[in-house]
Amino acid sequence: MNALPDLLVIAKKRGIRRLSVAAADGHSVLKAVQAAKREGIVQPILIGDKNKITQISQEINFDISDIEIIDEANHHAIARISVALINEGKADILMKGLIGTAPMLRAVVHKETGLRKNTLLSHFTLFESKFYHKIFGATDVAMNIAPTLDEKIQIINNAVEIMHKLDVPRPKVAVLSPAETVNPKIESSIHASILTMMNKRRQITGCIVDGPLALDNAISASATGLKGIVSEVAGDADLLVVPDLNSGNILYKSLIFLGGASSAAVITGAKVPIVLTSRAASEESKLLSIALASVLE
Amino acid sequence: MNALPDLLVIAKKRGIRRLSVAAADGHSVLKAVQAAKREGIVQPILIGDKNKITQISQEINFDISDIEIIDEANHHAIARISVALINEGKADILMKGLIGTAPMLRAVVHKETGLRKNTLLSHFTLFESKFYHKIFGATDVAMNIAPTLDEKIQIINNAVEIMHKLDVPRPKVAVLSPAETVNPKIESSIHASILTMMNKRRQITGCIVDGPLALDNAISASATGLKGIVSEVAGDADLLVVPDLNSGNILYKSLIFLGGASSAAVITGAKVPIVLTSRAASEESKLLSIALASVLE
Repeated sequence: MNALPDLLVIAKKRGIRRLSVAAADGHSVLKAVQAAKREGIVQPILIGDKNKITQISQEINFDISDIEIIDEANHHAIARISVALINEGKADILMKGLIGTAPMLRAVVHKETGLRKNTLLSHFTLFESKFYHKIFGATDVAMNIAPTLDEKIQIINNAVEIMHKLDVPRPKVAVLSPAETVNPKIESSIHASILTMMNKRRQITGCIVDGPLALDNAISASATGLKGIVSEVAGDADLLVVPDLNSGNILYKSLIFLGGASSAAVITGAKVPIVLTSRAASEESKLLSIALASVLE
Repeated sequence: MNALPDLLVIAKKRGIRRLSVAAADGHSVLKAVQAAKREGIVQPILIGDKNKITQISQEINFDISDIEIIDEANHHAIARISVALINEGKADILMKGLIGTAPMLRAVVHKETGLRKNTLLSHFTLFESKFYHKIFGATDVAMNIAPTLDEKIQIINNAVEIMHKLDVPRPKVAVLSPAETVNPKIESSIHASILTMMNKRRQITGCIVDGPLALDNAISASATGLKGIVSEVAGDADLLVVPDLNSGNILYKSLIFLGGASSAAVITGAKVPIVLTSRAASEESKLLSIALASVLE
């Protein structure tokens, strides 16, 4: 894959996925669903206020005559129903619409009726930047606030599984820290060292992990050369593992709003991929995220 | 100021500053000093191995016949001498050359012979990005690892003093966090709320502080509108205050290496501005940093 829009091509080839849309009664979500349906990627099931859904669909010229709508106004019920559709085998992937992240995730992680496997839920983003020579992933830039070492292992495993599905058989994983040196005062550099050694000892597999690396070491061969770093990952990372949410959110926002990058994102670690884009995400990003989820399922 | 190269114009107008260069015996540092001297900004005093300095100067066609050289090979002595030149009134600004940051800063913060005032030393960067409508500052993206609330107050005061000198009389200060909402589990959002209230109660002055703001809220009017944020700062920030070094380093590296931005940076909070650029910084960035230090002194 050379560009993010390739996701649309791949998704189309793999066939139509049934998309369960929680709280579909918003302009932005319906537009994204409309675009994904038009691309031949998904057949949606819309859960939400039927009157609103019908009204907005007319406004945006979205023909919903062949789409199942489940009329429900209560957000907790909407979340529960959207998840149940997955568990009942009626839908393949899940999308959060105009509903808060908290009630949505509560339904996803519910012990009996949810979608949890034994893994941590984490956020995975694919970026395309004209300043880098390939598509790259980043995790977790939006969900886990301050992951422990053990949680970072799961975050890496979740992301590596995705990279494999995207035909990157042995992704180069850069664990980020402010510098390439280990500083006992900086936890991200300690985590990075441990994760790198766990990879060398085959406790983390399917990828090549290296860290600590600063962002420039990870993605710029020239910055790497200057500092004399010997690394299979430096300058050519496929996946960036950020220290925490503070830094991850800044990476994401900086790439999109101050770097002209484009992105697609999913929540991973549940039984199915979940499209859970932020309000500020562009329509294109929402469509690409649906495509990414479709490719992964 | 509309573009970072304006720093060169302003510095030239203000007149020549005497630059104390610690460990000038490196290619990269001598090239930056050569460029700054050529621009008519500085008259350097070079401290370091005189033979090496002479040899490199010949290689890069740098005429050093009118430049004072202090021949010294020991790095601790070099750092001490470079600082002493400031305290003796023989130099106006300080630049770190081919010497480690640790020995350099030890000489700067030395209680008797150093350059410390009563303030915290902090790092300040100016950025120019084609994705933003004006030059903006960011602090502290390179020095303080995990600043406490009290340290963030000093970091903001240091940066606001710089913005005033750059003719931004009442800078709009965005205190960054992953979201615009206060989350008691996320310290950066707590710090941001407190700093904002301290500004409202005139405990932090000379600026307008607002936070928590996510990076997109701070610099993008459209992202702000979407989230219904009412703020004098949102979408128009002059200064970004990052949560910590993990996030600040990623902001800096992302803007430069994945955003095509340019930058100038100084260490502030000492008696004089200190140019302390990273090895990976471009020659242009080193020159602009000398110009920034010259303008501030």
